Amino acid sequence: MNFPTLKNDIFLRALMREPVPYTPMWMMRQAGRYLPEYNETRARAGSFMALAQNREYACEVTLQPLHRYKLDAAILFSDILTIPHAMGLGLDFVAGEGPRFEYPLRSEDDVRKLAVPDMDRLQYVFDAVTLIRHELDGRVPLIGFAGSPWTIGCYMVEGQSSSDYRLIKTMLYARPDLLHRILQVNTEATIQYLNAQIQAGAQAVMIFDSWGGVLADGAFQEFSLAYTKKVVDGLVREREGRKVPVIVFTKGGALWAEEIAAIGADAMGLDWTAGLGKIRRQVGDSVALQGNLDPHVLFAPEATIRAEARRVIDDFGTVGKGGHVFNLGHGISRFTPPEAVLALVDEVHTYSRRMHTE
Amino acid sequence: MNFPTLKNDIFLRALMREPVPYTPMWMMRQAGRYLPEYNETRARAGSFMALAQNREYACEVTLQPLHRYKLDAAILFSDILTIPHAMGLGLDFVAGEGPRFEYPLRSEDDVRKLAVPDMDRLQYVFDAVTLIRHELDGRVPLIGFAGSPWTIGCYMVEGQSSSDYRLIKTMLYARPDLLHRILQVNTEATIQYLNAQIQAGAQAVMIFDSWGGVLADGAFQEFSLAYTKKVVDGLVREREGRKVPVIVFTKGGALWAEEIAAIGADAMGLDWTAGLGKIRRQVGDSVALQGNLDPHVLFAPEATIRAEARRVIDDFGTVGKGGHVFNLGHGISRFTPPEAVLALVDEVHTYSRRMHTE
Repeated sequence: MNFPTLKNDIFLRALMREPVPYTPMWMMRQAGRYLPEYNETRARAGSFMALAQNREYACEVTLQPLHRYKLDAAILFSDILTIPHAMGLGLDFVAGEGPRFEYPLRSEDDVRKLAVPDMDRLQYVFDAVTLIRHELDGRVPLIGFAGSPWTIGCYMVEGQSSSDYRLIKTMLYARPDLLHRILQVNTEATIQYLNAQIQAGAQAVMIFDSWGGVLADGAFQEFSLAYTKKVVDGLVREREGRKVPVIVFTKGGALWAEEIAAIGADAMGLDWTAGLGKIRRQVGDSVALQGNLDPHVLFAPEATIRAEARRVIDDFGTVGKGGHVFNLGHGISRFTPPEAVLALVDEVHTYSRRMHTE
Repeated sequence: MNFPTLKNDIFLRALMREPVPYTPMWMMRQAGRYLPEYNETRARAGSFMALAQNREYACEVTLQPLHRYKLDAAILFSDILTIPHAMGLGLDFVAGEGPRFEYPLRSEDDVRKLAVPDMDRLQYVFDAVTLIRHELDGRVPLIGFAGSPWTIGCYMVEGQSSSDYRLIKTMLYARPDLLHRILQVNTEATIQYLNAQIQAGAQAVMIFDSWGGVLADGAFQEFSLAYTKKVVDGLVREREGRKVPVIVFTKGGALWAEEIAAIGADAMGLDWTAGLGKIRRQVGDSVALQGNLDPHVLFAPEATIRAEARRVIDDFGTVGKGGHVFNLGHGISRFTPPEAVLALVDEVHTYSRRMHTE
């Protein structure tokens, strides 16, 4: 592939818990609707899926936040629902309502027919990864990603986002055999999908278990974490002569931090509900931590943004070898003033550089 | 008031961590839309608020689940938004959309004008409590309740339910002084309100911190828990010659279990994300625990409902003196088949009686 040489590998080194000169940062959903230039490109593309399925557009929006901010990583512009889309469930993004599947999995027959899609149907994603790697010109690493088997399963059964997850939880308690079959198919598909992203040039991968936190203790381990672990186990972990770190992020999963830290990923993403210091005391230096500023801090005056950023960095601390990647605890809000991010990036870099050299 | 003598006080004894012959149970939202007789009464009343504001209707629906099931407690039929309604924020329940306030708190001026409402405006609630006490005829104790200052504050600022709590979190980070003023007024109102319910006959009270779990670590303690503690501190804890136990329930709050257990309430409610055994190991016997079956278990076949109920009871265990009140981890779903609850109540009582006498 002949990719340009990587100039800033601080993000990758922090994920591998190696020494770094400052705390690297990126933001979930950093290529998104809070940026006027993103909205402009999306308008040109016509729809969300047209944007995601065209490698030039996907590359353009992936790079946009890097033109504005000194972020330490880029993340592929795509969606966790590309896999169920490729499975033929009929994905549509209804304006103002979010994703919706025309053929959700409701009957035993629906579930029996489900199969791992041919990865050719996802070639547009891999093409985008390769193009972005070239266009990035080695500036920062590129993150690939996928949803966890449980999280994409939620959409596949519910057919859309849900406030109570009644349909999939009914399946979980009434027909666990059917749900296990869906999760097994999703797992195999996700392994192939992430490995193809790595093959195409992704330098780290992240698994978004966005809805793991809605499960009961016990059910989480059986229906979410066990399958996320299978995905982690199936990934290619080295490429182009260096490690490809894996980050696992379970929204609302801090309660299960010790169990999540033990599945073999290099890093664990955390939302804002858990102090990083407390989690480090629980999991030690077994994984790097990524997070965890509440994205709504970005609606505060600059002095507060800077103070809250320092609080997260201080809470993580400098003791031990655990790596820290600064991030928000969830995707950046579409209503965020873009200037607010400038102050955040500056504070994270400046303050942490002082800490790391002290 | 001359209330009838209480015949079944097992719920109150479990909350006070006294020995009991079996694990008592009730269900959050047990008087609700899953019951055809509730829907019939609501249709007669015309609207949710008409139902809640009429003591005969409120009494009728409060008693309905007790006619069907051998529950060990009744809970006042009302809503956590009665206080902001009495404050003049213009509450309306829009069909299919939930509660909505006509005058949400958005400006500094809105916040300055906010005041503790005259409790006369909430007399309909206290009248309902007294009527229900008489009509219950001592069968089981009656629980009164209120929202936490933070949780009702969410509705007062957002104006309706929210998926991201952007407006109140913006206030929290940008103008914490305004939010503290709202929370202080809510706290004083809630103390008066719950004490008046106790005065009117409530035999236990529960504080619903339904949205505490959306806050960042640190913010939760400052903007939610500190005010819930003030409410607990301000409550009358004895009445009619016996203790009036206080239950605090923070949805998504299991991460902060030790801190919540330390604010002086008698019991802590838990959602389904945390195993009761794990929480007991953290908090010891300092409080009773209430919970925590996922309400969606009630969509499973009877054998699964019974097995999952036993799992919760076994997880709590029999070691030590901590009391357990069986409950769902959240309100019962409106789609629940009413027959499913029969199996649940039977299993909780039968299985736990065997455990308690072993």
